[in-house]
Amino acid sequence: MRQDLSRTVALLERTPTALNALLRGLPEAWTLANEGAGTWTAFDIVGHLIHAEHTDWIPRATMILEHGESETFKPFNREGQNEKSQGKSLPQLLDEFAAVRAASLSRLRAMNLEPGDLDRRGRHPNFGPVTLGQLLATWAAHDLTHLHQLSRLLAYQYREAVGPWKVFLGVLQCDGHSSAA
Amino acid sequence: MRQDLSRTVALLERTPTALNALLRGLPEAWTLANEGAGTWTAFDIVGHLIHAEHTDWIPRATMILEHGESETFKPFNREGQNEKSQGKSLPQLLDEFAAVRAASLSRLRAMNLEPGDLDRRGRHPNFGPVTLGQLLATWAAHDLTHLHQLSRLLAYQYREAVGPWKVFLGVLQCDGHSSAA
Repeated sequence: MRQDLSRTVALLERTPTALNALLRGLPEAWTLANEGAGTWTAFDIVGHLIHAEHTDWIPRATMILEHGESETFKPFNREGQNEKSQGKSLPQLLDEFAAVRAASLSRLRAMNLEPGDLDRRGRHPNFGPVTLGQLLATWAAHDLTHLHQLSRLLAYQYREAVGPWKVFLGVLQCDGHSSAA
Repeated sequence: MRQDLSRTVALLERTPTALNALLRGLPEAWTLANEGAGTWTAFDIVGHLIHAEHTDWIPRATMILEHGESETFKPFNREGQNEKSQGKSLPQLLDEFAAVRAASLSRLRAMNLEPGDLDRRGRHPNFGPVTLGQLLATWAAHDLTHLHQLSRLLAYQYREAVGPWKVFLGVLQCDGHSSAA
């Protein structure tokens, strides 16, 4: 399927509500659990999504529109959320994510992008030239990669409890771990 | 983490709302797309979850409580939703899933299970003896395996659109596909 801005936005605007429905009020035995040393919790994931709103998607889209390939994106810090999430509760982070995502989509709409704008290019520190369309499709796919991670890390907590059914549950065999963005 | 009935229920009661938040109103380019021949769409997944409520979790739990290991569960038909979903819309299926899940949880509460009941045994057609606790943990993990599948199949639609970012998106490398339940 080709990138289509209205489809991308339809997904982006649903993620905060979906995460809220899944995580708000869920016991901390789920939301503060991870998949082992150095892996993330649900709390970490929501913090990461907030951090990406502030430093990745709209800032990079703006840079493409203003500077094209003449300036290189700042590298994205995957652990940037740790300090900013400290002392906050998960419900606070869920509220914050909903607010910053809404603000990002408002800024995106204000760009009044035409289909042809999706071919405009910027410069990624690792990849070199990338298009605005690729950046926006990645924004949506990045939501999905963290929803994927979230479903896997929650299921991981019951990897023993399910007993012999483990073999039927694909989520317990997943090794599709993300690296960076 | 040990199976704990209140934790299992907390997750089970959130799944319909989370799927509703993610899928209702999402363009059909997302909700009717799959990962290739013989794979499922979001529409198929919601139909499958409804079918499992009718034929798997509570019926099997009831069988354990009433007959223990003396009767074997009926095999679960993974494709059982196809006929029942025909002619329905995704919003109808989302409503139906919310209703049947609420009814299942109401029946579960009416069982007044004590922690010791989770060790009671039934007989699975493939595995032989299984416990009620394993069945209930699998109910929750089964929700998560389909949330995992859903995030993967949606991301799959943008596998080309994301361009070079593909290498950073774990969901596009996932091979943790479910087989049956």
